Amino acid sequence: MMGASTKEGYDIAKKSRKIVRSLIKDQIKDLTLEEQDIVERIVHSTADSEYAKLVKISPNFVSNSLKALKNKEDILTDINMVKAGITQYEGNVECYIKNEMVKKIAKEEKITRAAAAIEYAAKNDFKGIIAIGNAPTALYKAIELYEAGEISIASIVGVPVGFVGAADSKEKLQNTSIPNITTNGPKGGTPVAVAIVNSLIQSSKK
Amino acid sequence: MMGASTKEGYDIAKKSRKIVRSLIKDQIKDLTLEEQDIVERIVHSTADSEYAKLVKISPNFVSNSLKALKNKEDILTDINMVKAGITQYEGNVECYIKNEMVKKIAKEEKITRAAAAIEYAAKNDFKGIIAIGNAPTALYKAIELYEAGEISIASIVGVPVGFVGAADSKEKLQNTSIPNITTNGPKGGTPVAVAIVNSLIQSSKK
Repeated sequence: MMGASTKEGYDIAKKSRKIVRSLIKDQIKDLTLEEQDIVERIVHSTADSEYAKLVKISPNFVSNSLKALKNKEDILTDINMVKAGITQYEGNVECYIKNEMVKKIAKEEKITRAAAAIEYAAKNDFKGIIAIGNAPTALYKAIELYEAGEISIASIVGVPVGFVGAADSKEKLQNTSIPNITTNGPKGGTPVAVAIVNSLIQSSKK
Repeated sequence: MMGASTKEGYDIAKKSRKIVRSLIKDQIKDLTLEEQDIVERIVHSTADSEYAKLVKISPNFVSNSLKALKNKEDILTDINMVKAGITQYEGNVECYIKNEMVKKIAKEEKITRAAAAIEYAAKNDFKGIIAIGNAPTALYKAIELYEAGEISIASIVGVPVGFVGAADSKEKLQNTSIPNITTNGPKGGTPVAVAIVNSLIQSSKK
């Protein structure tokens, strides 16, 4: 459970999930079991029960994501902190933010490296789940490429954080046809992205 | 600023910090400039202004941490997500959670791998800053080893997150003589730890 590999770790995780459940169970009772697990895991990871009301999940998000995970499609993350948190996946987890080509694209097109990394993935025939825990610019770029038919996306975990652009980028994602999960408003972040992806990975193994 | 490496990234970070400052400036006005930078960076990274009232900094925390960073002492993190977020340090950033010896210690002593990793570091003559963004058990272990005179700690960034143990472990740290920064209550996490360490690294270069 929750990546715990020792009895003590397992016991802590179990006790924590019980507390989380008691805090938010009324708010998530209309969700599917897989969706409930995602929200519980976010609250467990952040100790912030406000997420129970901020998380928005599109109806096809879980099914599309599980299908991609079962097919071992790639998971593309915006920054290495998200990649570092995804430790139990049997497929590839990629992050291109430190790639030399990405630095070049960012400089030439005057965009952020996080956005350039999505462009780089598209050019290299990426197919799978995109997990964005930090950069709104990466999320805007993924939407733009998807709408231009230039990238194959199974689903987007779109939870960038911050007071500039994050809320807008997530609202934009909610209005696309891309299967997605987001958090309303400025809150989000790498532990939220990691919690969502790890919950899906665990569900895909059942 | 904030690790941004492109003009767009820099502009977003600058605008965000301005918003953060307007949200919390009254609450942090009695802190030193370095301490204010730390708290602003936490709020920037989490989009959660509640941190302005949760963060507690011991009087010797910043000076001891800056001294250690200027001497290029090691930074030890509890999990790889924290390590992945510390990208601008010229010294070593270590995380032993996946080390084979650590797995062995955890099994033998029936403790978490996060706690065993602190024990492993102590045995290998660690000296520097410990940054804990996830595991209360790692924080308890660091305090225990420090009080037994078995580890050399310049300061602890102690911001484990969660409903089980995190708040208690941080309160315990506040009551030691170790230079420390913590967050009251269950909130904390890897972006908080990373924000603190990166703020200190930036201050150490001035």
